Amino acid sequence: MRLVAALIVADPEQDFPRWYQDVLAKADLAENGPVRGTMVVRPYGYALWEHIQSEVDRRIKGAGAENVYFPLLIPESYLRREADHVEGFGPELAVVTIAGGRELSEPLIIRPTSETVFGVHMARWITSYRDLPLLLNQWANVVRWELRPRLFLRTTEFLWQEGHTAHAEAEDAAAYARRIHLEVYRDFLINVLAIPVFVGRKTAAERFAGAVNTLACEGIMRDGKALQLATSHELGQNFARAFDITYADAAGDIQHAWTTSWGASTRMVGGLIMAHGDERGLRVPPRVAPIQVVVVMVRDDEDALQSARELTDALCSAGARAKLDSAVHLGFGRRVTDWELKGVPVRIDIGPRDLKDGNVTVTRRDEHETRVVPIGDITSLVPIMLDKTQASMLAEATRFRDASTIDVDTIEQATEAGQIGVARIPWRLLGTAGERALLDQGLSVRCIERPDGCLPESEDEPDLNAIVARAY
Amino acid sequence: MRLVAALIVADPEQDFPRWYQDVLAKADLAENGPVRGTMVVRPYGYALWEHIQSEVDRRIKGAGAENVYFPLLIPESYLRREADHVEGFGPELAVVTIAGGRELSEPLIIRPTSETVFGVHMARWITSYRDLPLLLNQWANVVRWELRPRLFLRTTEFLWQEGHTAHAEAEDAAAYARRIHLEVYRDFLINVLAIPVFVGRKTAAERFAGAVNTLACEGIMRDGKALQLATSHELGQNFARAFDITYADAAGDIQHAWTTSWGASTRMVGGLIMAHGDERGLRVPPRVAPIQVVVVMVRDDEDALQSARELTDALCSAGARAKLDSAVHLGFGRRVTDWELKGVPVRIDIGPRDLKDGNVTVTRRDEHETRVVPIGDITSLVPIMLDKTQASMLAEATRFRDASTIDVDTIEQATEAGQIGVARIPWRLLGTAGERALLDQGLSVRCIERPDGCLPESEDEPDLNAIVARAY
Repeated sequence: MRLVAALIVADPEQDFPRWYQDVLAKADLAENGPVRGTMVVRPYGYALWEHIQSEVDRRIKGAGAENVYFPLLIPESYLRREADHVEGFGPELAVVTIAGGRELSEPLIIRPTSETVFGVHMARWITSYRDLPLLLNQWANVVRWELRPRLFLRTTEFLWQEGHTAHAEAEDAAAYARRIHLEVYRDFLINVLAIPVFVGRKTAAERFAGAVNTLACEGIMRDGKALQLATSHELGQNFARAFDITYADAAGDIQHAWTTSWGASTRMVGGLIMAHGDERGLRVPPRVAPIQVVVVMVRDDEDALQSARELTDALCSAGARAKLDSAVHLGFGRRVTDWELKGVPVRIDIGPRDLKDGNVTVTRRDEHETRVVPIGDITSLVPIMLDKTQASMLAEATRFRDASTIDVDTIEQATEAGQIGVARIPWRLLGTAGERALLDQGLSVRCIERPDGCLPESEDEPDLNAIVARAY
Repeated sequence: MRLVAALIVADPEQDFPRWYQDVLAKADLAENGPVRGTMVVRPYGYALWEHIQSEVDRRIKGAGAENVYFPLLIPESYLRREADHVEGFGPELAVVTIAGGRELSEPLIIRPTSETVFGVHMARWITSYRDLPLLLNQWANVVRWELRPRLFLRTTEFLWQEGHTAHAEAEDAAAYARRIHLEVYRDFLINVLAIPVFVGRKTAAERFAGAVNTLACEGIMRDGKALQLATSHELGQNFARAFDITYADAAGDIQHAWTTSWGASTRMVGGLIMAHGDERGLRVPPRVAPIQVVVVMVRDDEDALQSARELTDALCSAGARAKLDSAVHLGFGRRVTDWELKGVPVRIDIGPRDLKDGNVTVTRRDEHETRVVPIGDITSLVPIMLDKTQASMLAEATRFRDASTIDVDTIEQATEAGQIGVARIPWRLLGTAGERALLDQGLSVRCIERPDGCLPESEDEPDLNAIVARAY
């Protein structure tokens, strides 16, 4: 099997970047667009994104936020109103200077993120404490000119959701950012994408431009590098002051609001690929799999076709996302390789020989074993296999993450461990100076975590650990 | 009731444009963005769009097309490759000239539509007749610099879906464009949005830039003006030739493909408002209503609150989109006016007096009558009321459309009828010269239809009628 696979995608242990490119191309996920750093997301890649979107969107709505849509183009002057923000995003901007056949009097920025334009309208919508909290989210494209683009991970244009909220008190804003971070992002990443993330706060050096605190979810990829998968920001009163977001409190006094923002993007598709893929290609967690079960006709046979159709329909009726592969003009082996490459969790092979005894052959993508089972058992068996696959993918990724993480006490040890995986070092031993020293080695503090898994309230808590790794 | 309503929104019979603006603002649908012609879609407006999207998307997938995502930014040179296309869109383009801190060597266009960039990639993906048809769709934002912007109807940036397909034969392309037009657009507009559209082909003068045939769905708004709600284009081989979309046929000969494109946008939200609204505000067809039933507490009362909660939960469990309004600190009358303004199809008032007898009061938004019914009947009654509302809204809009449409025989009569509604005139009597004469009067041929409701194969068929109206 390994031999065949080697012909399809590069060996991930030998050349992980090449393996990633091969999987993107051969599983029909995405390819480069015409402008450097842009991406064309192909049907299978987009279907993954649609399932991710739907799960994240449900959780965002569950946290009380409502979807809206703000304009793509923002006056350049808006960005200048928050000093850190324009400094952070200035170098990455794409600027429209001509529109409708004329030079514009004020250049327009394609949004790199929308805090500024949300700020202007939130200021209008909020007058009293009764209008708070204001909890908004949008699904949109943003543009940030990337020097080292990489499909799904770092593209000039990407798709994301960005939440923007305003609150009466600092504690309300902090609590909501934490709620989103844990109930939306952590829950989705662990329980749906099956990626066991490190959850903590960013150091001052790694914070979002304009934030007073940034929370992060960091996944560990198969090459030992970290990938930031979602961030939630407490913006303090920085944007509220820059955009006059004020409210009258119960006593009638005018106060500045406290705002948050939080986002996750198509980068999560890259995370899914790199956290779970293997030498045969993609492995998709069942909960986001566009195709959860594929029913494969082994060869041309009227009875088998009839049975395969009925089985696929029965699986769909039972709530599984099932697909029939009856493309018998292509070889069986080639099609099997292709479904493995696409990472479909469960495959059912249906051929005349097994069928004579009332059986089909079932294979889980995450295992190597195949089982011959009675066709009548399939609809009750498949949901169990999907649940087991989901749990086993999380368990395997967790084992990998834990095995890749080494507890260390010195910067030297951290540097060494960080070259191949993750170093966990007490934050009080590292500090800002140590963080700078690691940066020179190509390592960064991905987040500062608490041993109990809760989110730290500040960098000064005792017993905090810095998670150090190379990062995408 | 009319008196109260007059305080909320302008009288649509006196000042329809003002009424439209009032409804947008007061039902929290949308407002102007910072850049002229851009739009901020607020939560209730966006929720309408989400329901429209989900219904249209399901139909598109049902017609076999798959979703993808192509880049926002297109090299200027791409647009020049199809002559009619660049001529049509040139004046409306927004152009990025600076990115990442530098002047770009080739300016980039923000997509006004994506035929060109789809063309380049389709050419790569198609090699043999086995790759056809290639059926793709994307949900995206596009930018067209509008001189006379109007929220939802004509905005500089709008959200839409754009389908792009390639086929082996001219007839395949034509058949697929017709299928999308009838099974996706017409079906959705009539059976979900409850707008009885005219369905036909555009005249040569009104065609999409680069198309050989454009099909349109045209709705008639409450002011008698027409609104184009969806279009489907046969592009012939124009784009296939410009972008080298070729395939090897069964004999191995290289052929140019035949392509189509088709789209519908956030303009449909404007259509929904203007086709169904009345003097009390919006009326939303139940099938796209973000809130189908609102359970309104008449005043503060512990028992009523308990019953209202249980009733709302029971309605949600029964599959209705139900919401509890327990904001008793606001007056009952004010809240009722607000739910009417937002066009929620069914309202259930729950107060201590009715409740003592086990009753609640039920009102359909599209009628003026209220009924007192036992609370135990509500969950079985509501689905029936929603179905009746949906049917009755379509029937009412159809009566209005038919009453607004006058059959005429001369250009003079058409001009007169077109000033207040729709003129239907035999196309052979009007012709291209007559069409030009009407344009001078501010009237356009919205489409050419066949009396039997099928789509005409060509302009030369006998018995075709031109639908003439003022248009948005």
